[in-house]
Amino acid sequence: MHRLVRIVIVFAGILPYQLIAQKSATEFTKYVNPFIGTSKMGHVFPGATVPFGMVQLSPQTNFEVMHQEDGSYNKKTYEYCAGYQYRDSTIIGFSHTNFSGTGHSDLGDFLVMPTTGELVLEPLKRDSGQKGFYSVFSHEREEASPGYYKVDLNSYGIKAELTATERVGYHQYTFPKSEHAHVILDLVYNIYHHDNKNVWTFIRVENDSLITGYRQTKGWARTRKVYFAMSFSKAFKSYGHEKYDSIKYDGFYRRFEQKENFPEMAGKDIRAYFNFDTEEGEKIGIRMALSSVSSLGALKNLKAEIPQWDFDKIKKEAKSKWNKELSKIEIETINPLHKVTFYTALYHTSLSPILYEDVDGKYLGLDQNIHESKGFTNYTIFSLWDTYRALHPLFNIIQPERNNDMIKSMLAHHDQSVHDMLPIWSHYANENWCMIGYHATSVIADALVKNVGDFDQNRALKACTNTANVRYFDGLGDYIDYHYVPDDKSHSSVSKTLEYAYNDWCIAQIADKIGKTEISNEYLKRSGYYKNVFDPKSGYMRPKMSDGSFRTNFDPMDTHGQGFIEGNAWNYGLYVPQNIPGMIKMMGGKERFSHHLDSLFAMEIADKYIDQHEDITRDGIIGNYVHGNEPGHHIPYLYNWTDKPYKTQERVRTIMKAMYGPAEDGLCGNDDAGQMSAWYVFSALGFYPVTPGSDEYAIGSPSIKSARLQLFNGKFLDIKVENQSPQNIYVQSVSVNGKTIDSRSIKHKDLINGGELLFLMGRQANY
Amino acid sequence: MHRLVRIVIVFAGILPYQLIAQKSATEFTKYVNPFIGTSKMGHVFPGATVPFGMVQLSPQTNFEVMHQEDGSYNKKTYEYCAGYQYRDSTIIGFSHTNFSGTGHSDLGDFLVMPTTGELVLEPLKRDSGQKGFYSVFSHEREEASPGYYKVDLNSYGIKAELTATERVGYHQYTFPKSEHAHVILDLVYNIYHHDNKNVWTFIRVENDSLITGYRQTKGWARTRKVYFAMSFSKAFKSYGHEKYDSIKYDGFYRRFEQKENFPEMAGKDIRAYFNFDTEEGEKIGIRMALSSVSSLGALKNLKAEIPQWDFDKIKKEAKSKWNKELSKIEIETINPLHKVTFYTALYHTSLSPILYEDVDGKYLGLDQNIHESKGFTNYTIFSLWDTYRALHPLFNIIQPERNNDMIKSMLAHHDQSVHDMLPIWSHYANENWCMIGYHATSVIADALVKNVGDFDQNRALKACTNTANVRYFDGLGDYIDYHYVPDDKSHSSVSKTLEYAYNDWCIAQIADKIGKTEISNEYLKRSGYYKNVFDPKSGYMRPKMSDGSFRTNFDPMDTHGQGFIEGNAWNYGLYVPQNIPGMIKMMGGKERFSHHLDSLFAMEIADKYIDQHEDITRDGIIGNYVHGNEPGHHIPYLYNWTDKPYKTQERVRTIMKAMYGPAEDGLCGNDDAGQMSAWYVFSALGFYPVTPGSDEYAIGSPSIKSARLQLFNGKFLDIKVENQSPQNIYVQSVSVNGKTIDSRSIKHKDLINGGELLFLMGRQANY
Repeated sequence: MHRLVRIVIVFAGILPYQLIAQKSATEFTKYVNPFIGTSKMGHVFPGATVPFGMVQLSPQTNFEVMHQEDGSYNKKTYEYCAGYQYRDSTIIGFSHTNFSGTGHSDLGDFLVMPTTGELVLEPLKRDSGQKGFYSVFSHEREEASPGYYKVDLNSYGIKAELTATERVGYHQYTFPKSEHAHVILDLVYNIYHHDNKNVWTFIRVENDSLITGYRQTKGWARTRKVYFAMSFSKAFKSYGHEKYDSIKYDGFYRRFEQKENFPEMAGKDIRAYFNFDTEEGEKIGIRMALSSVSSLGALKNLKAEIPQWDFDKIKKEAKSKWNKELSKIEIETINPLHKVTFYTALYHTSLSPILYEDVDGKYLGLDQNIHESKGFTNYTIFSLWDTYRALHPLFNIIQPERNNDMIKSMLAHHDQSVHDMLPIWSHYANENWCMIGYHATSVIADALVKNVGDFDQNRALKACTNTANVRYFDGLGDYIDYHYVPDDKSHSSVSKTLEYAYNDWCIAQIADKIGKTEISNEYLKRSGYYKNVFDPKSGYMRPKMSDGSFRTNFDPMDTHGQGFIEGNAWNYGLYVPQNIPGMIKMMGGKERFSHHLDSLFAMEIADKYIDQHEDITRDGIIGNYVHGNEPGHHIPYLYNWTDKPYKTQERVRTIMKAMYGPAEDGLCGNDDAGQMSAWYVFSALGFYPVTPGSDEYAIGSPSIKSARLQLFNGKFLDIKVENQSPQNIYVQSVSVNGKTIDSRSIKHKDLINGGELLFLMGRQANY
Repeated sequence: MHRLVRIVIVFAGILPYQLIAQKSATEFTKYVNPFIGTSKMGHVFPGATVPFGMVQLSPQTNFEVMHQEDGSYNKKTYEYCAGYQYRDSTIIGFSHTNFSGTGHSDLGDFLVMPTTGELVLEPLKRDSGQKGFYSVFSHEREEASPGYYKVDLNSYGIKAELTATERVGYHQYTFPKSEHAHVILDLVYNIYHHDNKNVWTFIRVENDSLITGYRQTKGWARTRKVYFAMSFSKAFKSYGHEKYDSIKYDGFYRRFEQKENFPEMAGKDIRAYFNFDTEEGEKIGIRMALSSVSSLGALKNLKAEIPQWDFDKIKKEAKSKWNKELSKIEIETINPLHKVTFYTALYHTSLSPILYEDVDGKYLGLDQNIHESKGFTNYTIFSLWDTYRALHPLFNIIQPERNNDMIKSMLAHHDQSVHDMLPIWSHYANENWCMIGYHATSVIADALVKNVGDFDQNRALKACTNTANVRYFDGLGDYIDYHYVPDDKSHSSVSKTLEYAYNDWCIAQIADKIGKTEISNEYLKRSGYYKNVFDPKSGYMRPKMSDGSFRTNFDPMDTHGQGFIEGNAWNYGLYVPQNIPGMIKMMGGKERFSHHLDSLFAMEIADKYIDQHEDITRDGIIGNYVHGNEPGHHIPYLYNWTDKPYKTQERVRTIMKAMYGPAEDGLCGNDDAGQMSAWYVFSALGFYPVTPGSDEYAIGSPSIKSARLQLFNGKFLDIKVENQSPQNIYVQSVSVNGKTIDSRSIKHKDLINGGELLFLMGRQANY
C-alpha cells in the first residue's frame, strides 16, 4: 500500500503535467517519468539522452558514498551504477556516459559542473574542511522528461538544463551575475568500485571556447578510451587545471606555468576549470561530443549533430525522436497511471544497447583497432545474460532494424575477438565476461526464427559454434567432456549447465533453419545436458561432482555457492526453456510441477537469503520467487504448461502491480539494460517470449485496454482487451483476426502479420 | 696518448676485417664501427638499424644501474640513454627503439630476451636471490656492423643476431637443444630515469606464432604510444604472462587462468613469455614491426617490409641501404683509421631524425590524432638545439630530399601544435620542450637560403613568426618586451637572449628571401638584442636584471645558474653567429678577441666546474673550451674572423685528433642525434657551417686526402687536398675549379655546383 500512497504524492508533485492526459498521437513523452527506477536498485538515470544514443548526460549525486578513500569495494557503490540516487540531496556534476539499469558499474565520463564564487576543484571536502564544488538541490526544482533534464543548483544560483543528440551532450547553464563563474571539467570522477580507475587523461585548449581530449580507464572495461570535443558558447576569460596524482613525468613541462592558461594538460588525474564573467540570467551553453575513435572524430560528431547554438531546438528534436520510438506502441489503459508505467518501461527498453560509432561509421573495435561499420550501424553495451530474455525479442517486434544492426555488431565483435567468441557482456570495445552462458546465440536464433534481419546466417552460425567450443571459457571444456559442468571444477555449475544447454538448443535452431542438419543434431544433443544435473531424489537441479555424484552439502534456498549464480535451486532449477514439457515430466508431471510453482510463490524466505545491497532484495520477491533479477522472469508463465494457466494470469497481474509502478521506486531490481522493463511491456500487452529462439509467446493477462503496434512491414497490430478491469484478470478466450486460438500461446506470425488480437477477459478463471 | 694505444688494441681485437682496406666502391660499411661512442657519454647504440629507420634494435646492458628501486633519478641513468655501455658484461635483452646520442633518456620499447632452462621473468634478481633472466656476454663474441648485430648469450648458449628494415626488427636466435627454450617479451623494461614510466600495455595472441599489442608511456614524452606486431618463425608450444603492478582492474577476467595460454593480456606492467622445444642449433626468427598508429598498422608494416623468413636477405639489404648512404661521400685518407672515424661519424649522422609513419603514410600527430603524410615522408626525433648547427646543414648537401621532408614534418608539427609552434625537441608525437631557442627556424632558413626543398615558403615563414611570438614560452614574452630575457624572470637568461636573437635573424633571412621586407626588418631588429646582454665593463655576456642592471653575483667559469645553460660565459658568450664581426667589435676588436680565444683554449678549468655525469666532462674539454657539448661547436672557427685564421686550422685538427677516434670511446660527449658527428664530417672535409641560415661555410683544415661527394643534382664535388700530412695542417690556398678563393670561407654554390675544391696544405701557417 505505501507504494500507491507515494505514487500519488509524486504524481501531485513533479509530474502534474502528465495528469492532463489529453490524447495526442505525438505526445507520448509526457507519459515517461525518467525518475522511475532511480531509487535504490533500479540503477537507471534521470538525465538527457535520445533513443539508443551514445551520450547519456545525467546528474551524479552523493559522490562521497561511491569513492572510499582506501579504494576498497563499497557495497553502496552498487546503488550508483547510473550515478544517481533519488534520496540524495547533492549533485556533484553532470556526466556524459551512464549505464541504464546494469548490475555492475562503470562509465561516468567527463563530469561537468558549473559553480560561482571561490574556485573549488575538490568535489567533496577540502583540506580546510569546507564543502567541495557539489551543490545542494531539491526535487521541487528538478525536472526530467525524455531528452531533457533540468535542476536548480541551489548552492550557486545556477539553473542547469541538459539535452542531447546521439553523440553530443548539450548543457545550458543560466548563471547569476558573477565575476567568478566557473565550469569545472573533472576528469578524475568515475563510476566504479575501485578508486580510481584512470589510466591517462589529456586536454587540449584548441581556442578560447573549444577544448578536446580523452580519458583512458581500467575499470570494468579493462582498456577503455573515450575522446571528447567540448565547445563553449562563450569564450572563457581564463582557465587552468590541477593534478591529483603523484605520478612523475616531465619532458620539460616544468618550464611552464602549466597550471594556468597552458593549453595542453595531461596526467592520470586532472581537473580543469574555465572562468567566466556572467551577467544576471546569462546562459552559457556547452556542447560535449564523444567519440571512441579520436578527438577529430568527436569534432566531426559535434559539427554534424549540433552545428549551432540552439538549445531549445535540440531539446525539441530529442523529444521528437522519443515520440517516434514511443509511438510504436500506442496504448490505452483503464488507469492513467498505467500509461506512465508502460511508457517509462518502453523508454527504458530504448536506452541500450547504445550507438557506438562516429558519424562517419568509424568505431574502436574489440581488437583495439579502428574499424568502419560497413552495411550496419555499430552498437555496444550488450548485457546479454539479461537482455536475450525479453528485450531482444521485443526489438524483433518494434525495432527489427536495430536488432539486425545489433546482431551485426555482435558478429563484428566475434570477428575482432581473439577468442573467436560472440559477446558475453561487452561494452566500449571490451569484453567484461560478466555472467554466464553465450546468449548472443539466443539473440541470433530468435531473430532468425522470426525472419528478422539480413545478417549473414552462415557466418552467424559459425560465430555461434566457435563460441560454443572455447574450452577455456568458464567451464565449457568440462561441459563438453562431462556433459555437465562438474561442481568441483567450476563455480555456478548448475546454472552454467542449464544455460549452455539452452544456448546449444538455440544454435540447433539456427543450424536447422539454414539446413545444417548435422550441426543441428549435434547441438540438440548438447541441449539435453540439463538432465544431467537433475537429482530425482531431491527433485531439484543440483550440483554434480566430476565423479558423477551429487553434492551432499546443498541448500536449495541459498543463492550463494550452491551451484547457481544470482538465484537458488527453487528458482533457477526451473530453467529449461528449450524443453518445458520435458522438464515438467522430469520433475514429476504437471500436477506436481504446478504445486512446486505454488510453493515458490507462497513460501516465506528467511532474512539470511536476502542481500539488501545486491540482486536479491525484499523489494523484488514474492514468496521465494525473485522478480528483481532475471533467472526467474519466465517462471510466472510456466503454469501455461500445466493444467492451471489461469495461475500464470494471476501471477503476471500481481507482479505488474507489485513490482512496477509510476514513481521513483517503480523498479523492484536492476532494470538490467531494459530487460526488467521489457518484461513489463510484453506482460502488459498479454504475452511473453518464454523461449527466445522459438516463434511462440506464452499468453499471460494483458493489463492494457488496447494497443496499436506499428510493425516494420508497415502493418499494424491492434490488441483489444474486452472486459478489462482490475478484477477481470482471467483470459476467457483469445482470437486473431476473428479466429479463436489456444489461449496459452500465440505464434510470432500471428502478431507480425498485423490485424487484430482480441483478448476476452473475465472475473473467473477459465479452466 | 692512451687513446691511441687503445685504438690499436681495439683494432687488433674486434675490427681486424676493417684493416683489410681493399678499395671497393660498394663496401663503405666495413669502415663503420657501431661501437664507437658506446662508452661513457657518447650515448649511441651498437644495434641494428637502417638509415633514418624507425626501428633501432639494440642490446640493453646493466639494467640494474638504470632502475633504482625507489624510482629516484639516478645520475648513471644518463649514461644509458641508448641502453648500452661498452664496459658492461651483461645483457638483459634487445629493445626496438633507442635514441642515438641524445642528452636525455626515453624509449627502450619492447625488450625481447631468449633464454633456456627454468623460466625466469625477473630481469635482475629474484626473491630467492638467484640471477634474473639477463645473460653474461663478452666483446670477443660480439659483432656489430651497419644493419647487423651479433652476440653470444653465454648464460644460455644462445647466439643472438639482429637486423632490421625501416619499421621491422628482425631477431634470429640460435638455440641449443632444449625442452625449456623461452622468448621473453618484457613490457616493463624502459629507458628513463623514473621507474617506471608505463601507463598501460596490451598483448593479443593472434595465433600460435603471431602476437600484437601496444605500450603507452609517460616518460620524457608525456603521452607516448607504440604498437607492435611480433611474428615468430616457429609456433610456440605454450605462453603466459605475469603482472608486476598492484593496480586493480577486473571485468570478470578472474574467471580465467589468465596467466597461462590466455590470449589477451593487459595491465600496467606485464612480462610475457613464449615456450619452445628446440633442437641443437635450431634457429628461431622473430620479426617485430612497430607502428605509431595501430596494431593493424604494425601488421601492414610487417607484411610490406619482411613478408618472408630470410634473415640473411634482410641483413644484406640493410647493409646495401647503408652502403648507398655512406657512398655519398667517398674519401681517401692518409691514415686508414681516419676512414673508420669518418664513416662511423657519417653513419651516426644517418640515425636520426627517424622515419615516423606506417607504410601507408599514416602516423600519430602531435595533436594525438592519426594523420596521413601527403606529399612528404614524416620524421620524428628533432633534437634541434643540437642538430641545427651542422647536421641539418650536412643534410642540405648530402640528404636534401630528406631534409625537405624533415622540414615538412616540422610544419605538420606546427599545424598540429595547440601552441602554433614549430618543434623545439620533439619525438614520437610529443614536444618535450628540452633546451632553448626555436631552432627549427634555423633549419628552415638554411634550407631556403641554399635552395633546398619544395616546402611552402610562406607557410614556413608564418610557422616561424607564430613560434617567435608565443609569449608564455620560456621567457619569450619578456624577451619581446625587454629586448632581452631578464635574469630575475627566467633561468638561462643570457643563453635564451642570444639564441632567440640568432633565431630571429634566421626568420629575417626567410622573410627576406621571399620578399617580405617588413617582416625581415622586424626580425633583423630583434636579432640585434644580443647586444643587450653584453656587459662592456666585464667584457662578458652577462645576466641582466629586469631593472636594467647586470647581475652582481656572477662567475663566468660556472656552467650552472649563471644565466647560461650547459655552458659558461667564456664559451656561450661567443654565440652571435648572425653577426660575428659585430660581436668581435663589441668585445674589443679582432686582436683582443683572438686573445680571448687563445685563453679559452689554454686556461685550466677547476674540478668544481666539471660534472663527470653530465655534459661537461674532462673527456670533452680542451682548456676551458668544451667540445663535448654544442654551444661551442662554432668557436674553433671564429679565428677566421680575426687576423689569425691559421689558429682555426690548428684547433680543428687538434679537436679532430683528440675528441674523435675509431674506438668505443671515440666520442667525447653525447653524439646528440648526430650533431657531434656532423661536426667531424664537415671539419674533416675542411669547412663548417658557422652560421646556418647563411650560404657560407668557414674554412678549417681538412684531414682527408680526397673526397668525392655525390650531389643530389647528379653532379660530383671532388675535394682534393694537396700536401696532406699530420704536420701539414695549414691551408696555403683554396681554389674552386681552378680559381683561387678567399681561404677563410666558401659559398654553398661553390660546393653544390660540383667540380673541384682544391686545398693546398703546408707545414707553416699562412699569415
